[in-house]
Order: sequence, then C-alpha cells, then structure tokens
Amino acid sequence: MERLEQQLNFLLEMDKLKSVFRQTYLADGSRKENDAEHSWHLVMMAFLLAEYANEPVDVLKVMKMVMLHDVIEIDAGDTYAYDTAGNATKRVRELAAAKRIFALLPDDQAAEFRGLWDEFEAMETMEARFANTLDKMQPLLLNHASEGKSWMEHGVKASQIMERNARTPEGSEALWQHMKTLIEENISKGNIKEG
Amino acid sequence: MERLEQQLNFLLEMDKLKSVFRQTYLADGSRKENDAEHSWHLVMMAFLLAEYANEPVDVLKVMKMVMLHDVIEIDAGDTYAYDTAGNATKRVRELAAAKRIFALLPDDQAAEFRGLWDEFEAMETMEARFANTLDKMQPLLLNHASEGKSWMEHGVKASQIMERNARTPEGSEALWQHMKTLIEENISKGNIKEG
Repeated sequence: MERLEQQLNFLLEMDKLKSVFRQTYLADGSRKENDAEHSWHLVMMAFLLAEYANEPVDVLKVMKMVMLHDVIEIDAGDTYAYDTAGNATKRVRELAAAKRIFALLPDDQAAEFRGLWDEFEAMETMEARFANTLDKMQPLLLNHASEGKSWMEHGVKASQIMERNARTPEGSEALWQHMKTLIEENISKGNIKEG
Repeated sequence: MERLEQQLNFLLEMDKLKSVFRQTYLADGSRKENDAEHSWHLVMMAFLLAEYANEPVDVLKVMKMVMLHDVIEIDAGDTYAYDTAGNATKRVRELAAAKRIFALLPDDQAAEFRGLWDEFEAMETMEARFANTLDKMQPLLLNHASEGKSWMEHGVKASQIMERNARTPEGSEALWQHMKTLIEENISKGNIKEG
C-alpha cells in the first residue's frame, strides 16, 4: 500500500492549492479566485473550446496540463502577471517547487506529471500553446465580467496586456481575435489604461 | 461568432460554481470547500488513481464527468449527503437545473455534456462507477484530514456513511478497502458516531 499512501499524500498536498489566491476576481467581483478554481475553469475550457486550437489537439493532454499547471504555486505562490520583481525570480522559485512537489508521487507518476508541467512551460507543442492561450484568456473573461476590477486596482496599461499576450495567438488565432475585441472594449471603457 | 458567444456565456455561468459551498472542510479545517475546488480535486484523482478502477477506464471520459458532475448545483444547490428532506427533492431539482444549464451550450455540446451527466448519474458504465467512487472518496479524505470536523458538526453515524457508500466498491474495490480503514479509524477516534 506504499504506492497508494504516496498518491493520497500528494492529493492532500494538492488541497493547499485552494488557498493560493490570484489577483483575478470572480465574475461577480465578490472576491479573488484561487488556483484550484482557476484550474478547474481551464479544464472546462480545454474541453469546451478545443475546436479553436490552431491545429488539432489531444484534449486529454491539454486537460491534464491545465489541471496541474499551477500546482508549483503551493510553494512558489502566485506571481501577479504585472509584478516585475516577482517575475524576475519566478522561474527559480517554480523549479524548486516542482522538484519538491512532484517527488511526493511514485516515480512513474512523478515523471509523468513533471513531463506535463515541463511541456506546458516550454510552449513548444500545440497542446502546450493552446493550454497557455486558455490560461491567458480565462482571467481576461473574468476581468471583463467584473468591469475590470483587477485591472483598475493595479492600474494595468494596454501595452502590458499586449506584451503579456505576445504568444497567445500561437495557441488559437480565433480566440485571440475575440480577446483583442474584449481588450479594446475595456480600453474604451477606461478599465484598462491607454498606452 | 454566435457559437463562441454561447460557449463563453456558458463559461461565465460556470463561474457561479465557485460560490456553491459544500459541507466538507478543506484539509486544514479553515473553511468549507466549494464545488469548483471539489471538481478540480476529482479531476486530479481521476488521472492519479485510474489504475485502481475495477476494470480499465477511459480516463478522459472520467475526467470530463467529474469536471461537470456538479454544475447542476448552480441552480439546485449542494444537497448535503445526510440531509434526508433535501435528498427527497434532489433529483427533481437537479433535472430542472440540467435542462436550463446545458441548454446554454451550442446544440452539439449541450447533447455531449448532458450525455456525460446522465451517464454519471446512471452509474451503469465503468467510468461512471469509478467517477462516483472518487466523488465519495474525496470528502472522506478531507474529513479524515480535518479530524472529522464536518462529521462531528453534523453528528454523522457509521451506518449513514456505510449506507451512502453502498455502491462505492463498484468503482474500485481497492480504494473502498482503504476508505473502510479510514472510516474505522475515525469511528475509534469518536469523529464518527458508532451505530
């Protein structure tokens, strides 16, 4: 039963992701969302929006990637998209987290989970690119729904959003077109700063 | 773009699942968990524990089922496992919710989502049985971790837990064996009432 004990111990560790909060508010603006909620929403998007990937994707692989893409934040914390200092150290913190967290699993599953996380981070496969597009689109949908609450709180500028989304079209040109429409609408409303 | 608008509208509707709270506490006992967090945890379990299903399962299908099994609670609310009055009306409330919520999707996806939900509810396929086993096991793991906080709050008896889990072994005998060990341990600790 050692294998099962390791797996259940990992699942309890995963519970901590429910207490890692992001800067994005729920659609109704009532509170910020956490990583577990965000990841569940992305799993739903992977299934629902797979048809918009630039090339056909293995949906199971995309679902697995988005399910686990943020588990390293249990140790590394959520680094806000526009936190320059935080982003400078993010990669080092996340690699250390990946090393500890995936090692909780039995060896075969540790390798599989780590492989999926590395693939997501590398953004080389179609699945990884599409997963990254979804990861950028989900907070945009929520920010739009909450009338730009998080953007306004942080004084986010259009150029920051465009820079952050430089590679978003690589996953889905179609979804990126829609995202651009939402960004423009929120600039004109004053929810996103011009420039 | 009407199709994409329908899909994004559905995704915003899904956001409400983050505000449907369950009776189960997080592992650290700090607060109750919501349906989105619970569903994410089950997606992780589907991937991690598939090897324990009584027969081989289509993991993608199990992940889809657990991802969406509770979305009807956006309208129907979470019915606590041991709420007799609530459970008497649960099926009717959930069917009405399924009718409204899945109809937000484009027709083909509405049929696919509804089909997966119906399959989960019917517990006839191996995937549905295994998904149901995970849905019973996850709160047990959290209740055990939080020293029985929710069981004690509701004065839950061993016989109620055994009755609720009558069909749990159909998904995984191996996981059920472990669950029984946890139940017995919590009876002996006084976290679950005898009888």
